[in-house]
Amino acid sequence: MLLKTHDCGKLSKSHIGETVVLNGWVQTRRDLGGVLFIDLRDRSGIVQIVFNPDFSGEALAAADRVRSEYVLAVKGKVVERDPDTVNPNLQTGDIEVRITEIEIFNSAKTPPFFIEDGIETDESVRLKYRYLDLRRPEMQRTLMLRSKAAKVFRDYLDENGFLEVETPILTKSTPEGARDYLVPSRVHPGEFFALPQSPQIYKQLLMVGGMERYYQIARCFRDEDLRADRQPEFTQVDIETSFLSQDQLLSMMEELMARLFRETVGVEIPTPFMRIPYEEAIGKYGSDKPDLRFGLELVDLSDLFVNSEVKVFASAIAKGGQVKLLNAKGCGTWSRKEIDDLGPFAARYGAKGLAWIQVKDGEMKGPIVKFFSASELDALKERAGAEEGDLLLFSADSKKVVADVLGNLRLKIGRELGLIDESQFKFAWVVDFPLLGYDEEQKRYVAEHHPFTRPKTEDLHYFDTDPGQIRAQAYDLVLNGYEVGGGSMRIYQRDVQEKMFNALGFSKEEANDKFGFLLEAFEYGTPPHGGIAFGFDRLVMLLSHRSNLRETIAFPKTASATDLLSAAPSPVDSKQLEELSIRVAVKAQ
Amino acid sequence: MLLKTHDCGKLSKSHIGETVVLNGWVQTRRDLGGVLFIDLRDRSGIVQIVFNPDFSGEALAAADRVRSEYVLAVKGKVVERDPDTVNPNLQTGDIEVRITEIEIFNSAKTPPFFIEDGIETDESVRLKYRYLDLRRPEMQRTLMLRSKAAKVFRDYLDENGFLEVETPILTKSTPEGARDYLVPSRVHPGEFFALPQSPQIYKQLLMVGGMERYYQIARCFRDEDLRADRQPEFTQVDIETSFLSQDQLLSMMEELMARLFRETVGVEIPTPFMRIPYEEAIGKYGSDKPDLRFGLELVDLSDLFVNSEVKVFASAIAKGGQVKLLNAKGCGTWSRKEIDDLGPFAARYGAKGLAWIQVKDGEMKGPIVKFFSASELDALKERAGAEEGDLLLFSADSKKVVADVLGNLRLKIGRELGLIDESQFKFAWVVDFPLLGYDEEQKRYVAEHHPFTRPKTEDLHYFDTDPGQIRAQAYDLVLNGYEVGGGSMRIYQRDVQEKMFNALGFSKEEANDKFGFLLEAFEYGTPPHGGIAFGFDRLVMLLSHRSNLRETIAFPKTASATDLLSAAPSPVDSKQLEELSIRVAVKAQ
Repeated sequence: MLLKTHDCGKLSKSHIGETVVLNGWVQTRRDLGGVLFIDLRDRSGIVQIVFNPDFSGEALAAADRVRSEYVLAVKGKVVERDPDTVNPNLQTGDIEVRITEIEIFNSAKTPPFFIEDGIETDESVRLKYRYLDLRRPEMQRTLMLRSKAAKVFRDYLDENGFLEVETPILTKSTPEGARDYLVPSRVHPGEFFALPQSPQIYKQLLMVGGMERYYQIARCFRDEDLRADRQPEFTQVDIETSFLSQDQLLSMMEELMARLFRETVGVEIPTPFMRIPYEEAIGKYGSDKPDLRFGLELVDLSDLFVNSEVKVFASAIAKGGQVKLLNAKGCGTWSRKEIDDLGPFAARYGAKGLAWIQVKDGEMKGPIVKFFSASELDALKERAGAEEGDLLLFSADSKKVVADVLGNLRLKIGRELGLIDESQFKFAWVVDFPLLGYDEEQKRYVAEHHPFTRPKTEDLHYFDTDPGQIRAQAYDLVLNGYEVGGGSMRIYQRDVQEKMFNALGFSKEEANDKFGFLLEAFEYGTPPHGGIAFGFDRLVMLLSHRSNLRETIAFPKTASATDLLSAAPSPVDSKQLEELSIRVAVKAQ
Repeated sequence: MLLKTHDCGKLSKSHIGETVVLNGWVQTRRDLGGVLFIDLRDRSGIVQIVFNPDFSGEALAAADRVRSEYVLAVKGKVVERDPDTVNPNLQTGDIEVRITEIEIFNSAKTPPFFIEDGIETDESVRLKYRYLDLRRPEMQRTLMLRSKAAKVFRDYLDENGFLEVETPILTKSTPEGARDYLVPSRVHPGEFFALPQSPQIYKQLLMVGGMERYYQIARCFRDEDLRADRQPEFTQVDIETSFLSQDQLLSMMEELMARLFRETVGVEIPTPFMRIPYEEAIGKYGSDKPDLRFGLELVDLSDLFVNSEVKVFASAIAKGGQVKLLNAKGCGTWSRKEIDDLGPFAARYGAKGLAWIQVKDGEMKGPIVKFFSASELDALKERAGAEEGDLLLFSADSKKVVADVLGNLRLKIGRELGLIDESQFKFAWVVDFPLLGYDEEQKRYVAEHHPFTRPKTEDLHYFDTDPGQIRAQAYDLVLNGYEVGGGSMRIYQRDVQEKMFNALGFSKEEANDKFGFLLEAFEYGTPPHGGIAFGFDRLVMLLSHRSNLRETIAFPKTASATDLLSAAPSPVDSKQLEELSIRVAVKAQ
C-alpha cells in the first residue's frame, strides 16, 4: 500500500524536487488531450496531480478510469508550475505533482451533491449522506474549529486547577424542568433511568465532595418539542467552583472567553466584560440577552404620561405597565407601507397596535400626534432625542410586552439599517436576575433559575416582606444577542435554603421528596460554591459564523428529533421490550 | 466572606510571616488546655491551625464549637513550629497558622465514616455517601490522576492531528453484540433510540467523511448482567485513522502509552512493545491477555504422547486436543494437601482432573508416574526443564480447556510464589487474532471482532478453502494481564467485504438489513482505515493501583446497575410513560 508521506494541501514550493506519496479523494478530473489533471483532496486541502504519457506510463492508463470521489494513492515528484498555469485561487497553486505510480484504493458512486462549499442542497439530503457532507471543506473547518475550541477550554481550565470529572448519563429522573428522556431498567423491572438535562446535581455534589474546581464538556438531553435551533442532545461546558466570589468566577471566565477567541479565530476580546443588571438590560434593550453591537436604546416615557389624555398610554400605566419608545434613527423617511408592515411584526410579540411618529420636515407627524398636548410632544421629543429623519415607535402595555415588542423591533430595525457589524463579538454579563417569579397559574413563586440559587445578601430581608424583589447571584453571559452561558452562586446555608423553600411554598416533605439526596448531602459540610455552563454548540456556531446548531455537530438530529443517517429512532424487537418489562401503548390516532 | 488566598497543603516554610486566608474542612480538633489545634483540610492537603487566647481572641470562642467536617474560613499568620512539635508525617509539618479571624461557612453532621485513606467501611455505605467518600485523599488522588490521564491523551492526540468529534448518544439499536439500553421516543410513538455500545459505526463514517484522524473520550453503554468489574456505562478513548498501516498506528499508540505513564505516574515505558501472535500467546501463556511480569511458560507435550499408554493423554490428542504442562518452579516441596487444593481450582476452568508430578529427592513422584514409560518420563523431564524442587502440572484436553486451565494455574502460582512485581508495567500487543470462529450452535462462522475487520492480505485465499485459518489485522493491547485496548484495521474493499459476509453466511439482504447505512456509505469512496479503543476506566485503575473500576469513577453503579446515591433507577409518573406511549408490563414473579 502506498501510504501518504505528505498532506495534499500543505505542499508548496519548498517541496519542489521531492518525491511524495499522497492519499486522497478525486475532486475533479480533466483530460486535456491525453494528459490527465486531477485535483486531489484530503483534509488539508487540494493539490493538482498530473498524469502524462511522458512520465506516467502505466499510471496514466490506470488513472484514466477514476472518477469523482475515488480514493487514490499516488507517488510522484513535486514540480513548479509554468507561470501561465499558476492557480492563485489554490493554496498549492504554484506547484503540481507529476505522478509515476498510482494505486486506486477505492471507487465511488456519484455523490448526490457536490463536495464543495456553499451548496444549496436540501438539508435533509445532506443529513442522510452526512458522511459526504462532512467531506465539504466548510464542514471540515467547522469541526476542526470545534475540536480546537474544546482543546482551548480544557487547556485553560486545566491550567487553572479544574479537574475534569465525568458524571453519569444514566441518572435519576428529576421532578422539575424540561421533559426527561427515560431508559427502562431491565434488571429492575418497572424502574427507569433518566438522561441528564445537565450535570447540575452531580456538580454540586462534587463541591460537597471537596473537589473545589470541576469541569466537564458534558452531553445533556432534553425531550422538548424542538424549535428550529434546538437539539435533543447538546453539549455544554459545565463548570463548578468552591471558595470563589461571583466576581472572581466571572473574571476567570472572561479570561477563558478571551483565550478561546484568540486561539480559535484570532480575535482579541477586551476584558473585563460589561456587567449589565437585568433590570437595566430589560429597560434599555427589552431583552435579557441584548445584542450590544449597536445602540438604539429604549426610552422610558412612563412618568410623562401618568395623567395624559392619551388614553392607551395613561391606562397602561394605571395598570402597572409602561410607556416606552424606540427611536428608529433615520427611518423617518419610510413610507406609510413600510411603517405599517411593522404592526404585524409587533403583534407577534403581544402588541395590540403600534403607535408611531415621524419627524419629517421639522414636524412631528403621524395619526396619533393629535392626541398629544404640546408639552407632551416637547417632553417626549426631548426624552427621545428626536431629530429630523427619526421614526419613534411606541409601546404601552405590561412591562413584559413592552420589552418584547420594542426589544424585537430594536433587533429588526438594527438589522435592516445595517447597524450590526457581523465581524464584531460583543460580550456582556447580565447580572442580578430576579430570584423568584410569580406564577399566576400556580399562585405561588417559582425559582427563576433553580431552587439552589443564592440570593444577594443585601436582599435577604425581602424574604419576609416582598420575595419578588430579591435579586439572585445569577448571571448570563451574552454574546451578540445570544445567551452563550449562564450560572449562579448556590445556596450553602441551611437557613437561607429553608427561606427559599418557604418562598416556593414547599413543605419540608415536598422538598425532601424532590431534592432528597442533595439536601442530605448539604448537611455534611457544604462549601460556598457556584458555577456556570456554556452552550458549546452555540459558541462554536458564533465562532464559525454558521447559521444554525446543526452545522456545528457532526451527526445532528432534525427538528423532529430524527437521525436521518441511521434512521433512528426505529422500532425494536418485541423480545427486547419484553426483557425490559415494557410494552408499546400507542393510542389510536 | 473570607475567601482563600492559599491552599492548605501547599503552605511551607517559605510562607513564614505571611498572613493567609484558608478555606477548608475540619479534619481533627484537639483542645489542649484552652489552646485549640485544628487540622484544616482542602483538596491540596492538611495544615495545622492554632487558636490561642494570646492572639485569637474572639476567634477562639467561635472555633470552640466547630466539629469534624465543619467548613471554615480562617485568617492568620504562618509561623514556624517549635522543633519538638514538628510533624514529619505532614507535608506542612514544619509550620502552623496562628488564627486571628474565623468565619464558619457551614456546620456538618457527623459523617458515617472517617474522611481518611484505607477505611474498611462497607462499599455500599461509601457509595450512598459518595460525596463524603470523595473527600478522602485516595479518592481525590485517583480522580486527579484520571483528569490528568484524559489531558495527556488529548494533548498527544491533538499534537498528532487528531480531531475530537462528538458522536451521538441517542443512536440506532444495533442488531449484534451485547444488549442495548433503549430510549423510547415521545415524538415517534413505538420507536426507540439506543445508547451506543461504542461509537464504532460513527467513527467509521467519519473516516468515510474524510476526517482522517478522529478521537473521542466516549461514554459507552452495555446492558449486561454485570460482573464484579463491569459498569453499565463506561468510558473509552476511541480512535480511528485513515491512510495508516497497522504498524504505523500501533507505533503511534505505543508512544501515547509511554507518554501517558510518564506524565501521570512518572514511569518510563520502553517502546516498541513486544508483539505476540495470538497463537503464541495462547500457546505460551494460555491466555490472549498474558501477564508478562513473570515467566512460567506452558510447555507443549502433545507430540510426545500421541501413542502413549497414558490413556487420558493419548485420547485427548486423538480427539484433536493437546497435552501441556506448567512447571511450577519451586513448588515441588508443596504438601499433598496443597497440591490437591489446585484440583477444584482447575476444575473451575474445565479440567476433569489435575495430574501432577513432583521432582523431589532426585525423583519424579506422584500418582501418575507409574503410567509413564521411562522414555516418556525422560522426554517430558527434558522438555519441561524439570529440576529438583519443581512441580509439574498437566492438562490434557481440548486446546481451549488446556489454555484456560494452565493459563489460570500459571496466574495463581505466579501470584502465590510472589513472582509478580506489582510496581512493573508490562505492555504487549497481541496480534494476528483469528478473523472467524466457528459457532457450533449456529453451525456457521461468526466474526471474532466484528464483520468489518480486515483479514491479513496473505490469508485472503483461505476464504475459499478454510476460513477458520484466516488471521485478522486485529490487535489487543495487554498490560499486566488486562486487555486495556483493542482494535483492527477495517475492510474497505467491496470484494473483501462480500467474501466476509459470505463466510458469515449473510445474504446481501441480511447484510443490508443489519448494516444498511454503513454499507451504503462504503460505496462512496472509503479510505483504508483502522482504529483502536482504550478502556479508560481500566487504564486509570492500573495507573492508580486500585483494585476495581468503581474506585476510578466519581459516581459509579453497583453490580446490580444501581446508583446508591440518587437511588436510580426508580419508578416514574404514569403520565411520563403515557407521553412516551409505553406501559410497564412486569411479569408476575
